Amino acid sequence: MIVITKSNIDNARIEEIVAYIERNEGVQAHVSKGTDRTVIGIIGQADPALGDHLRGMKGVENVIKVSKSYKLASRDFHPDDTIIDIKGVKIGGSNLVIMGGPCAVETPEQIDEIARLVKAAGGQVLRGGAFKPRTGPYSFQGVGVEGLAMMAEAGKKHGLLTITEVMTPEYVDVCAEYADILQVGTRNMQNFDLLRKLGTIQTPVLLKRGFSSTYDEFLNAAEYILAGGNPNVMLCERGIRTFETYTRNTLDLSAIPVLQSLSHLPVISDPSHGTGRRELVEPMSKASVAAGANGLIVEMHTDPDNSMTGDGVQSLFPDQFAKLLKELEQLAPLVGKEFNTEKEPAGAFVEWKK
Amino acid sequence: MIVITKSNIDNARIEEIVAYIERNEGVQAHVSKGTDRTVIGIIGQADPALGDHLRGMKGVENVIKVSKSYKLASRDFHPDDTIIDIKGVKIGGSNLVIMGGPCAVETPEQIDEIARLVKAAGGQVLRGGAFKPRTGPYSFQGVGVEGLAMMAEAGKKHGLLTITEVMTPEYVDVCAEYADILQVGTRNMQNFDLLRKLGTIQTPVLLKRGFSSTYDEFLNAAEYILAGGNPNVMLCERGIRTFETYTRNTLDLSAIPVLQSLSHLPVISDPSHGTGRRELVEPMSKASVAAGANGLIVEMHTDPDNSMTGDGVQSLFPDQFAKLLKELEQLAPLVGKEFNTEKEPAGAFVEWKK
Amino acid sequence: MIVITKSNIDNARIEEIVAYIERNEGVQAHVSKGTDRTVIGIIGQADPALGDHLRGMKGVENVIKVSKSYKLASRDFHPDDTIIDIKGVKIGGSNLVIMGGPCAVETPEQIDEIARLVKAAGGQVLRGGAFKPRTGPYSFQGVGVEGLAMMAEAGKKHGLLTITEVMTPEYVDVCAEYADILQVGTRNMQNFDLLRKLGTIQTPVLLKRGFSSTYDEFLNAAEYILAGGNPNVMLCERGIRTFETYTRNTLDLSAIPVLQSLSHLPVISDPSHGTGRRELVEPMSKASVAAGANGLIVEMHTDPDNSMTGDGVQSLFPDQFAKLLKELEQLAPLVGKEFNTEKEPAGAFVEWKK
Amino acid sequence: MIVITKSNIDNARIEEIVAYIERNEGVQAHVSKGTDRTVIGIIGQADPALGDHLRGMKGVENVIKVSKSYKLASRDFHPDDTIIDIKGVKIGGSNLVIMGGPCAVETPEQIDEIARLVKAAGGQVLRGGAFKPRTGPYSFQGVGVEGLAMMAEAGKKHGLLTITEVMTPEYVDVCAEYADILQVGTRNMQNFDLLRKLGTIQTPVLLKRGFSSTYDEFLNAAEYILAGGNPNVMLCERGIRTFETYTRNTLDLSAIPVLQSLSHLPVISDPSHGTGRRELVEPMSKASVAAGANGLIVEMHTDPDNSMTGDGVQSLFPDQFAKLLKELEQLAPLVGKEFNTEKEPAGAFVEWKK
Repeated sequence: MIVITKSNIDNARIEEIVAYIERNEGVQAHVSKGTDRTVIGIIGQADPALGDHLRGMKGVENVIKVSKSYKLASRDFHPDDTIIDIKGVKIGGSNLVIMGGPCAVETPEQIDEIARLVKAAGGQVLRGGAFKPRTGPYSFQGVGVEGLAMMAEAGKKHGLLTITEVMTPEYVDVCAEYADILQVGTRNMQNFDLLRKLGTIQTPVLLKRGFSSTYDEFLNAAEYILAGGNPNVMLCERGIRTFETYTRNTLDLSAIPVLQSLSHLPVISDPSHGTGRRELVEPMSKASVAAGANGLIVEMHTDPDNSMTGDGVQSLFPDQFAKLLKELEQLAPLVGKEFNTEKEPAGAFVEWKK
Repeated sequence: MIVITKSNIDNARIEEIVAYIERNEGVQAHVSKGTDRTVIGIIGQADPALGDHLRGMKGVENVIKVSKSYKLASRDFHPDDTIIDIKGVKIGGSNLVIMGGPCAVETPEQIDEIARLVKAAGGQVLRGGAFKPRTGPYSFQGVGVEGLAMMAEAGKKHGLLTITEVMTPEYVDVCAEYADILQVGTRNMQNFDLLRKLGTIQTPVLLKRGFSSTYDEFLNAAEYILAGGNPNVMLCERGIRTFETYTRNTLDLSAIPVLQSLSHLPVISDPSHGTGRRELVEPMSKASVAAGANGLIVEMHTDPDNSMTGDGVQSLFPDQFAKLLKELEQLAPLVGKEFNTEKEPAGAFVEWKK
Repeated sequence: MIVITKSNIDNARIEEIVAYIERNEGVQAHVSKGTDRTVIGIIGQADPALGDHLRGMKGVENVIKVSKSYKLASRDFHPDDTIIDIKGVKIGGSNLVIMGGPCAVETPEQIDEIARLVKAAGGQVLRGGAFKPRTGPYSFQGVGVEGLAMMAEAGKKHGLLTITEVMTPEYVDVCAEYADILQVGTRNMQNFDLLRKLGTIQTPVLLKRGFSSTYDEFLNAAEYILAGGNPNVMLCERGIRTFETYTRNTLDLSAIPVLQSLSHLPVISDPSHGTGRRELVEPMSKASVAAGANGLIVEMHTDPDNSMTGDGVQSLFPDQFAKLLKELEQLAPLVGKEFNTEKEPAGAFVEWKK
Repeated sequence: MIVITKSNIDNARIEEIVAYIERNEGVQAHVSKGTDRTVIGIIGQADPALGDHLRGMKGVENVIKVSKSYKLASRDFHPDDTIIDIKGVKIGGSNLVIMGGPCAVETPEQIDEIARLVKAAGGQVLRGGAFKPRTGPYSFQGVGVEGLAMMAEAGKKHGLLTITEVMTPEYVDVCAEYADILQVGTRNMQNFDLLRKLGTIQTPVLLKRGFSSTYDEFLNAAEYILAGGNPNVMLCERGIRTFETYTRNTLDLSAIPVLQSLSHLPVISDPSHGTGRRELVEPMSKASVAAGANGLIVEMHTDPDNSMTGDGVQSLFPDQFAKLLKELEQLAPLVGKEFNTEKEPAGAFVEWKK
């Protein structure tokens, strides 16, 4: 931590600040006088609150954090890529994993048919929501626990892992019973009780970036889960809120290489929610892989015009999904990634029924 | 809802869109051909998901919501101001209420001393956090349930209402047992399970705007609580995230008159978190009142340099707090507000001990 | 300037960085080793580009500016408020100045009638655009030089100063011939050739903040004019672009006290463009004055529904304008400001013709 | 244009609004009453200002644009891709063009050496600034007209086109004399006098997106140039300003497919300014191409640590540049693009001298 003083403060004030700092055990102040301002370096493990206090003190212009506030999530701490192995499917490192499926689980037939198509196209994980976070209280809120069972059944039958969103600590256990990966939605990235609860289990977690969160806050949210004892965390970029309204969000692809350099955790991209428009899913999926993503989570539906949530607007049709995966299979090796090594070639596209 | 087609689509496509709309019971389509595009008005109560589906259909350029998705929070539905009466303290309408206190409850002595000073200055509500939402897992997380008891005790002794933050549905009951008002923090504005739980009780709720939420999303979040059966909701503007980093957030004071015109609920301003800098609390408090706020929630601490959270940086000293309230008492009548009618003149400032 | 290294870099690399810094004349490096990272303070007057170079060097994590890049605009350099005296009207310090008028000058009759009403209400400056910056090339672009003459005439007749926007260096001289104050619009805040040209004259300049500019960039833009030799600069907050679309911009009122603390220049608020909605002009005008603004620039039109630009939507009617000024006159002394000392009491409202 | 009324307004008010609309020649109003609000469609070519006026009228809730305000830039107007042919180098369509070079031209030797390396790597255009837009007045402002001559000489010798930034209308002619392409910087995207001047010549223009501009504003800015008579416009995405500060800007890659669908103009990506960090240039260049960009503009310098501007921090070294182009050559065909068809295989990297 570094303290920068206001210009022209007197020595007595500097000494008071130094004394205030050194009251903290194991912490030393290191004063460096400039022509205009004085800079005080703080050496040792200081409590983050110390910086905030100092910022409020008389004579202090600014306080700058030097060390990161997260540790376990940091690549300094864990230089090698984390690779999460779930029943033989590897996520992280040079593997490119594709998660596909509907926004919401609707009926056993719907999820079974979509699972079949995800598998045929080369996907490895089936996505689907049973509990839906909705802006207004009068919208469809998901089919609930029954949906978890439907999805688990479909995943098992077609040889796919499953991922579903969990919204509150009390549902973590039941979701973990049915699904292979638990997703934390963008609105819950800083739902700290939920994060803490997820730290107490071992089920892998896909943590979505808050739509207005910085990289630093995102990694601190991951740190909550890691610090609780669950090392199986994936980060997911899903678009941030900006002034542009043509797209639902602005997919921040720089987040992929930045998060991979700051952290060892796998980084997944969500071009469906990140754009909110079906026609942008293909180019932004390719761009995500080219930027180095460890995987994609993509919405696909057999009948998007009649899906129960309105997210059909961004869902690919099954033939678009299969074509995309075929093209990603070609693109992956150019950026040092392998596409679904366990499987037959991608894009064995088959007919589907609505 | 209004559907705008792409330019130059043929009649057959328009008929398909109309047929798709009219499959919904009680909904009619009204076609209006322009020189370039066709506009289809949807008349009747359509499901919000219909609009999303339409947006994804071939030939559709855009879909525009005409009706608001919230009802109970809307001034159309409830033209008069909501005035919440808590043990004789009225919030809403022409009343100007001041809530003051520390970021976090620390010790019985600390909260008792601060309560005494809030009361002496003319405040009516004591604020203080027992559970603290913190970006990183290694920061001080609050003193917990014990803090609730300390604050309730201090409030009772000094004749103040109390307000505290609740972060998760399972803590709603215990917080409501001790505090007069429950606060939902900015990160939980869309924690829908928490909102639903708060709808099942009658304790007044101060709902903070998500730091990246629109007015529409904010009012939809309030709607969750209202729709559950709890009519006692206050809205709180506390700053939004922008590209400016000099202030912690950008306090959006236009939110005050806008929310008051869209809704009947009281609007409170938080200049402490909204700026994150002590020296800005006074001008932005006055500006909030001048913009028409129904109240303020302001951090005050007897010893901010040694507070347990780092939020001391934005806490007023007791003498600054007393002076501010004295000045607000003069300002209030100029904008049609009454300052704390139950009490002695503001700002009877007294000595304090750290 | 402070350089923060990456963690665990070796001594040789640190020495290279130090050597690189000390190649610059009059600059010294001051090394401070922490437990994790090393901090190198740079003492002396370093070129700003040095920091950028250092940021790109191997082993460097971050570079932090300590000194401000602007000097003449800074309160460190000029501790007293700048008060600009234009023909006896004082702008800055404890004076509250009101500038009012139409978005665009349209006809001699229009501007004369509006000038009469601005004066009657207690305004001191007549605003009006002759050259209009418009998003699209097919919109009305202003009446040009003729408009300047019409406005000068109306100002003279009614005893008002005049302010008009200048968009390009080649028009600076002609605008300065007719108007008392030249305005730089939000889109031109970083039109450096225009700023440099304005530095060569003595006519006062009202510089609007770029709608996506930081305080630091804003003060650096002012520095261009000051450094050229023109000390008569006013800063104008006029709203920034955020994700909220209900208001045209988000008026950032914290900018008022912040800019007044960083700089000695007067700060004017523009609640008309800052909100883009007529009904918000009154509350946000009052909030601006309560936050400490040195003046307001407000749109007023006798017939806004038929104005030549579309900005009628945010123009006050003359009676609203007169009422607002009357209320501001009462509010001003509560925040240490004096309203138009040269004149009769505000708000002597009179009938008007469209 | 569509007008949406407030709820529950009476028929008389609706008739007044209709009468107001129909005063405009060639414009018709089409009323459609909903259960709650009335929608009035405006048919015919209405002036954009009409919408703004209507928005300000009593009883009007909102006004929505249906037609785009730009025409010549729109793909509706010009369905085929624009391909700009400059001395045989084709920009647009399936061609992938690479522009490379330093931030600023410094000396004849510097620009000659860099030109040699751009050419050897497979680039087709040499970039370099002679006039530099700088935030503060005390930074290096470019070498001026002499720099234009140096760059023209280097381009000619090595068989490269040249591109340079022009900042003010009066310099357009001299810049066009020396350079093959003129660049409008992000701060000047809405410098309308500059845009108008560029419309009067035929030299191709690369127009950078304002760092806080919407797609709609960007295309309207292009429209100024096109409407003036210059059809040779390229659009350049260079990052927008968001709350994230780790990267200098947030490169919005969705802009590439969106602009290509709304417009026929070529879209170039600038990963150097779009990220502000050297290590992100490679992944974001690949992502840009994968998203469908028609070209890239990339900073490269033989000695970035000693460049005259501080932009060395984002400049690639020559070997990184050559490696990148070699990889892009492989990537291009996977997304339907051809890399520099006129040349030898990319990446014939050669030694360089600082």
